[in-house]
Amino acid sequence: MDVHDGRRRVVIENVTPEIDAGRFPIKRVVGESVRVEADIFTDGHDALGAILLHRRAGESGWIETAMQPLVNDRWAATFSVDHFGRHEYTLEAWIDHFESWRRDLKKRIDARQNEELAVQMLIGADLIEEASGRAAPPEQRALRAAAAALRDSSDLSIRLEQALGEELEATMRRHADRSLATRYPRNLGVVVDRERARFSSWYELFPRSTSTVRGGHGTFRDVIERLPYVASMGFDVLYLPPIHPIGVSFRKGRNNALVAEQGDPGSPWAIGSVEGGHTSIHPQLGTMDEFQALIGEARRQGLEIALDIAFQVSPDHPWVREHPSWFRQRPDGTIQYAENPPKKYQDIYPLNFDSPDWQALWRELRDVFLFWAANGVRIFRVDNPHTKAFSFWEWAIGEIKEQYPDAIFLAEAFTRPKVMYYLAKLGFTQSYTYFAWRDQKWELTEYFTELTGSDVREYFRPNAWPNTPDILTEALQHGGRPAFMARHVLAATLCANYGIYGPAYELQEHLPRESGSEEYLGSEKYEIREWNLDDRASLRDFITRVNRIRNQNRALHSDWSLRFHPTTNEHLICYSKATGERDNVVLVVVNLDPYHRQSGEVDLDLRELGVDGDRPFQVHDLLTGGRYLWHGSRNYVELDPWSVPAHLFVVRRRVLSEESFEYYA
Amino acid sequence: MDVHDGRRRVVIENVTPEIDAGRFPIKRVVGESVRVEADIFTDGHDALGAILLHRRAGESGWIETAMQPLVNDRWAATFSVDHFGRHEYTLEAWIDHFESWRRDLKKRIDARQNEELAVQMLIGADLIEEASGRAAPPEQRALRAAAAALRDSSDLSIRLEQALGEELEATMRRHADRSLATRYPRNLGVVVDRERARFSSWYELFPRSTSTVRGGHGTFRDVIERLPYVASMGFDVLYLPPIHPIGVSFRKGRNNALVAEQGDPGSPWAIGSVEGGHTSIHPQLGTMDEFQALIGEARRQGLEIALDIAFQVSPDHPWVREHPSWFRQRPDGTIQYAENPPKKYQDIYPLNFDSPDWQALWRELRDVFLFWAANGVRIFRVDNPHTKAFSFWEWAIGEIKEQYPDAIFLAEAFTRPKVMYYLAKLGFTQSYTYFAWRDQKWELTEYFTELTGSDVREYFRPNAWPNTPDILTEALQHGGRPAFMARHVLAATLCANYGIYGPAYELQEHLPRESGSEEYLGSEKYEIREWNLDDRASLRDFITRVNRIRNQNRALHSDWSLRFHPTTNEHLICYSKATGERDNVVLVVVNLDPYHRQSGEVDLDLRELGVDGDRPFQVHDLLTGGRYLWHGSRNYVELDPWSVPAHLFVVRRRVLSEESFEYYA
Repeated sequence: MDVHDGRRRVVIENVTPEIDAGRFPIKRVVGESVRVEADIFTDGHDALGAILLHRRAGESGWIETAMQPLVNDRWAATFSVDHFGRHEYTLEAWIDHFESWRRDLKKRIDARQNEELAVQMLIGADLIEEASGRAAPPEQRALRAAAAALRDSSDLSIRLEQALGEELEATMRRHADRSLATRYPRNLGVVVDRERARFSSWYELFPRSTSTVRGGHGTFRDVIERLPYVASMGFDVLYLPPIHPIGVSFRKGRNNALVAEQGDPGSPWAIGSVEGGHTSIHPQLGTMDEFQALIGEARRQGLEIALDIAFQVSPDHPWVREHPSWFRQRPDGTIQYAENPPKKYQDIYPLNFDSPDWQALWRELRDVFLFWAANGVRIFRVDNPHTKAFSFWEWAIGEIKEQYPDAIFLAEAFTRPKVMYYLAKLGFTQSYTYFAWRDQKWELTEYFTELTGSDVREYFRPNAWPNTPDILTEALQHGGRPAFMARHVLAATLCANYGIYGPAYELQEHLPRESGSEEYLGSEKYEIREWNLDDRASLRDFITRVNRIRNQNRALHSDWSLRFHPTTNEHLICYSKATGERDNVVLVVVNLDPYHRQSGEVDLDLRELGVDGDRPFQVHDLLTGGRYLWHGSRNYVELDPWSVPAHLFVVRRRVLSEESFEYYA
Repeated sequence: MDVHDGRRRVVIENVTPEIDAGRFPIKRVVGESVRVEADIFTDGHDALGAILLHRRAGESGWIETAMQPLVNDRWAATFSVDHFGRHEYTLEAWIDHFESWRRDLKKRIDARQNEELAVQMLIGADLIEEASGRAAPPEQRALRAAAAALRDSSDLSIRLEQALGEELEATMRRHADRSLATRYPRNLGVVVDRERARFSSWYELFPRSTSTVRGGHGTFRDVIERLPYVASMGFDVLYLPPIHPIGVSFRKGRNNALVAEQGDPGSPWAIGSVEGGHTSIHPQLGTMDEFQALIGEARRQGLEIALDIAFQVSPDHPWVREHPSWFRQRPDGTIQYAENPPKKYQDIYPLNFDSPDWQALWRELRDVFLFWAANGVRIFRVDNPHTKAFSFWEWAIGEIKEQYPDAIFLAEAFTRPKVMYYLAKLGFTQSYTYFAWRDQKWELTEYFTELTGSDVREYFRPNAWPNTPDILTEALQHGGRPAFMARHVLAATLCANYGIYGPAYELQEHLPRESGSEEYLGSEKYEIREWNLDDRASLRDFITRVNRIRNQNRALHSDWSLRFHPTTNEHLICYSKATGERDNVVLVVVNLDPYHRQSGEVDLDLRELGVDGDRPFQVHDLLTGGRYLWHGSRNYVELDPWSVPAHLFVVRRRVLSEESFEYYA
């Protein structure tokens, strides 16, 4: 008989959250909670006890939380995570014979089974006696006394009262016989990050374009000068494209020209030259000391520096010489450059993850992160992670977070959905999304419902970007200022993590290299740009206002509460976010049509807004300052894209009435 | 570095079917197939190869089937199961470097990358050369020759043609380098049953009520006399309530009276007396030889005998004396009888699965099945399995099916849905359902959609009963003959496995013991009944007709094709079933109102019926013989419950027209 102990009669199944049978951890930030549910049942009619167990990884003891039955054999309990790093949880459940007996005793009393009660007192006494053997002295004495009391010959009604006492029940529950308890067979993981993993506002800029000298190459010192500009807009992450030496072999020229001209700076993603590779700094940007100064000054202004980690090299990178086996050698003696036929990227060599020397390669790549972490960087935007071996990421992120549990990894993958989700499962803290290409109401609704309302949210934290140096969408090319405003509001409110690539964004840079392309004309990837930050058309003030609203309204600091509300006009999208207690409720309406004024009715789910359908409520537009008194679920809205294409309401439930008028004020 | 080999770069996830991360097997019958799908992908752009592996459990080799890519990284393949017993399957996938190269080569040719082609010939030759090392001599020679051909200096266009040849591709696929393949980490199980597991028509009768002598106790010989009656109605399983000696202590009287009167036979489920227990036969029924004769004669008439296995005992059962530890002893020296306070069943002792002697108990119970299996029984209807330890069932059914892979177990559990599903996961072949209490269109639709259209169908095979000796539903109490007809058609066509408890059913026995009860007045559980099988009101002919239609239409032999079609009248339910090739399509319409004629339109999903919307089609009512020419999806129906409350159409797609008129016939 190969059954361990056939008397373990309780079943625990269908545990949520659980990703791929426990293969991957879920994600939380410090201070959040994990609500765990499971189907728990046994044969027959016995009463059950069930607990949720949790602990920080590596600790030996478990913290226990009693689970509560819901309906249909579903049980639930919640635990909070108050520290960085990995946690784990599992479940245990058992048959509670005392509780079965107590429950049945009540039914017997109700059914006046008086002939039965005397023997039931003896059965109960036996159960209590048995439990006393598992209790420590003070409670042990109490239990023994209780058992004796049920056995003595005093008045039955007194004994019944004792048997059903709540204190006895609580003591008995503490000392339930768990020797035949069922333990859920897997310990499920939780990766606990800091709050910025869930709520962050990114601003990307090219340091070399920050010089105040006409035609000059920007430096870290210039970036320090630029910090107040970025910080005043309300961003908290300043993300820099690669800061390493740039290769000269096959360097690309302006507008991605195949041959660079004299003075063309090359793409920062063609990493490595005689001056060094992934742990070196481009000499024209400055020194490591200056980079440290930038990190420090940024921190003082509330900004955190994020670095771009792009694991690919120029033909001039030291690794090409030092580790030829990390690259694919061709029979003609050349090294395989990057290509996706028919496209060729001769200025870049991809790393060969099939290399027999893969272990040394993995260590070296991990050490790149560790190097920058040791130098004060904790946020890494990872370029094209989907073209590197998946198992590398799981291993490397695990290793790095063991030393730096506050490290944040943003996956730059715009590829197939399952690949994007898989990267998140492997450990990426945040992930780029398809937001840039989702323009229509139905597709925004469908996509963000999937991201925030399905299991995906347990491991995939979206980070929405309306533009990047590689992506100038058609919507922005043709939609003018209204599109830039609307797309900014959408990114900043649909998604607690969002970012823009500036100053291209606030200055509404919108010309593509050629028609049908998403590449910028005069892309900063291939040339140094000078930006007129003081342009009167700049959206700087608008962005500042949206970020201030984001920062001041906790409802916008997370994504799980996102709910879409129907509207009568396909150009008007309406959604809300709320805190758990609904003490902060934000309602957003955006006109998706950048050309025309649009109007219609929104059909609000008032329960989501925490609003009483019988009383009026106020919506206060934090963008314009306008206040509207609404009543019931259907309300009229009208938005002119050339004024402000969005309402960013805070919902105020209590509206003054004559009852609150102070006569003697 | 604890990663086994970081070069295993392919990911396999989200495999279907897979029950609870492979914890439980799926179910099939001999001759069916298993379509397996999975998300399979890798980093980057490499081409993949993937196979489905399957085998009978215990065999060492695997049978391989190539998987085909669908969309969005989903792959699929199918295998058939042609033998009883356990099978298993898993997946393997790898990067196919030759296929990547071949695919890219085509793109290069299209892009006229002529400067690149010479070196590509060398790269391809290396890949082919490498594969030749994995091939056996004949193919090895061919591959070496192909490699040499790509390397020689002949005309490039000839070499390109050779490189892209389909024969080379097929050979290369056979010898792909799978040394770094990803194997799905679990072997997933399939329990393969005989066809009766999926399609069966049960008839339950009390042998003791089959005597032809007035007031006599029926015997196995009487049941043999009854066989033609049952067989002629088209049933294929004859299920007998327990045939064991019945206890005398606390024996229940007629109509479940607390005290039996002289001559009351007792409940067959109060098993055991001085005459024996679960492996003995009630002396008044006959001998083991006569039971064997019954099995043999039944088989000759196309009927299989199913026994009821009820693991509970009367106080007189030999186990009570021989194994006191298998029962719960009370402090007053008595044994705990069955109860569910305030209900008491003093004539029955439940087994105590918490017994320290649980292993001996388990073996004894398993041996009850083995005893009857050795005596020719292969179908077991298991009474109240949900009040016995779950792990016992998994173990016992596994043990029994190892010796008797053709054994069928029907779980009689009318309890919480998750418990019913769990019993099926543990190994029960078929399961009772909530069908008896599902009267309304919406609830029938919802319930049978869950049973046949969700993952549940992979392990839970429903068996629908409109009545049982314990369940005389309100619908049957009050609905008269129309209700009995309609409920029969529903059970027999919604569910490939169904049964009735007769002759109560065909004779429309409908009086409850008391108002509000589902127990029969004069229940056969507590007394011997004499039935007038020749009653003119009997539904025998109707049932015969329905069973004949079931047997002749393969669409009704399985459940997965069940689809509901909307109707304009809430009393009219409409659904269809079809074979895989749609060469047999059955369309059912039932009037759920037993009191009134109902009419309305059905709104057919013609694709499900395999019907061309542009051409008329014929529906042929196999119950009445009526034929209707329909056109398009909306068609009118009208059903009079007092005539026949259902249409049982076969859909005939080709309708004669002038084109098929034979001028010279």
